Amino acid sequence: MAVTLYDLAGAEDDRRFSPFCWRTRLALAHKGLAVEMLPWRFTETDKIAFSGQGKVPVMVDGGKTVFDSWTIADYLDATYPERPLLASPRERALAKFVSAWTDTVLHPGVARLIMADVHEHLHQKDKPYFRKSREDRFGMTLEAFCADRETKLPAFRQSLTPLRMTLQSQPHLGGETPNYADYVVFGGFQWARCTSPVQLLAADDPVAAWRKRLLDAFDGLAGKAKGYAA
Amino acid sequence: MAVTLYDLAGAEDDRRFSPFCWRTRLALAHKGLAVEMLPWRFTETDKIAFSGQGKVPVMVDGGKTVFDSWTIADYLDATYPERPLLASPRERALAKFVSAWTDTVLHPGVARLIMADVHEHLHQKDKPYFRKSREDRFGMTLEAFCADRETKLPAFRQSLTPLRMTLQSQPHLGGETPNYADYVVFGGFQWARCTSPVQLLAADDPVAAWRKRLLDAFDGLAGKAKGYAA
Repeated sequence: MAVTLYDLAGAEDDRRFSPFCWRTRLALAHKGLAVEMLPWRFTETDKIAFSGQGKVPVMVDGGKTVFDSWTIADYLDATYPERPLLASPRERALAKFVSAWTDTVLHPGVARLIMADVHEHLHQKDKPYFRKSREDRFGMTLEAFCADRETKLPAFRQSLTPLRMTLQSQPHLGGETPNYADYVVFGGFQWARCTSPVQLLAADDPVAAWRKRLLDAFDGLAGKAKGYAA
Repeated sequence: MAVTLYDLAGAEDDRRFSPFCWRTRLALAHKGLAVEMLPWRFTETDKIAFSGQGKVPVMVDGGKTVFDSWTIADYLDATYPERPLLASPRERALAKFVSAWTDTVLHPGVARLIMADVHEHLHQKDKPYFRKSREDRFGMTLEAFCADRETKLPAFRQSLTPLRMTLQSQPHLGGETPNYADYVVFGGFQWARCTSPVQLLAADDPVAAWRKRLLDAFDGLAGKAKGYAA
């Protein structure tokens, strides 16, 4: 029986842009598990109320409900240890640092560049909730939050220095092949690619070469997804 | 036969403050290898000329010379695989990211707080070289580079967010026990502790609790080293 995954969608059913859902989609592909994807919008809280909370990803596997992308990755390795590991326990410990960097450096940097574009791609019924919740959080309008994008881009690219240095010496964060840390960071780039025309990376950036490898991975799972040329 | 390590020293032979040498000292302790430490100063290039380059750490092990802290860690795991690993190959790949973050975020942040203090602790014969090379690099005097320390401290502490988040959920970067990634990051803190009275961390910071664990590790190897109470 296939795994079911509730996945954040935009105005179109096939625009899937949650960085956290992308972590889980790539994790499922890494494990070689078939998945039935269900589009979900921010305001459809009733649809995932059975999970006991209000955010995606929510995964249902053989009647078991699991939520939170990190917890899902743990669950997948614990439940399917015979399939390729997303991360051994000691790799997972180090991946925590990569994940913390992603949540507190990469995502906030991407957000300043794309949040207004994300809003443009939302389903009409989600737009008021999204605008209000984000503007309350940021203390300004989405448009002000994302103003002067070209001016912000150099500092954003500079903030990627640790990632760039790492990918100058090895093809993935996990080494020769990707592991869960790669999917965590990649989710942030895919969030942008699926919602915004902004060119996060210069073409000759080693980070762009790594992103391309992950866009191509698993038969182009991420690269074929509806988005902008990246 | 004990390993020999050339280790950067200050005015006193026993003030050892190189963050890179601390990585190696903790790596040697992790492997349980005895080490003969030789104090070395920046201007004593002749003493390590046999290594073919001019920086420490330089390690000599049974006639084999190895330099660069990352290379030394690789060498130790490859040469002594029966002793506790500093990092498996896949842990090492992820540790690269931690190391890149340390070199490009942590160290530059610490440098803005302590470089003038480092200078004060140097041997007289090293001071002119140190001042000139660093002032050329920074484009300003050491004193200007380190001005307004108290004003910079909040931003420095904020830059530790990924480290803090990680150490809120686990005792070490490596997990239950430290691995080479821990020693890499710890070196940056020990650099400060051995040269400067600045309080890098608030007492209730989870990063401070982690630092204390590493100061106490290996019979207090780092904690007993000449420095300031941290």
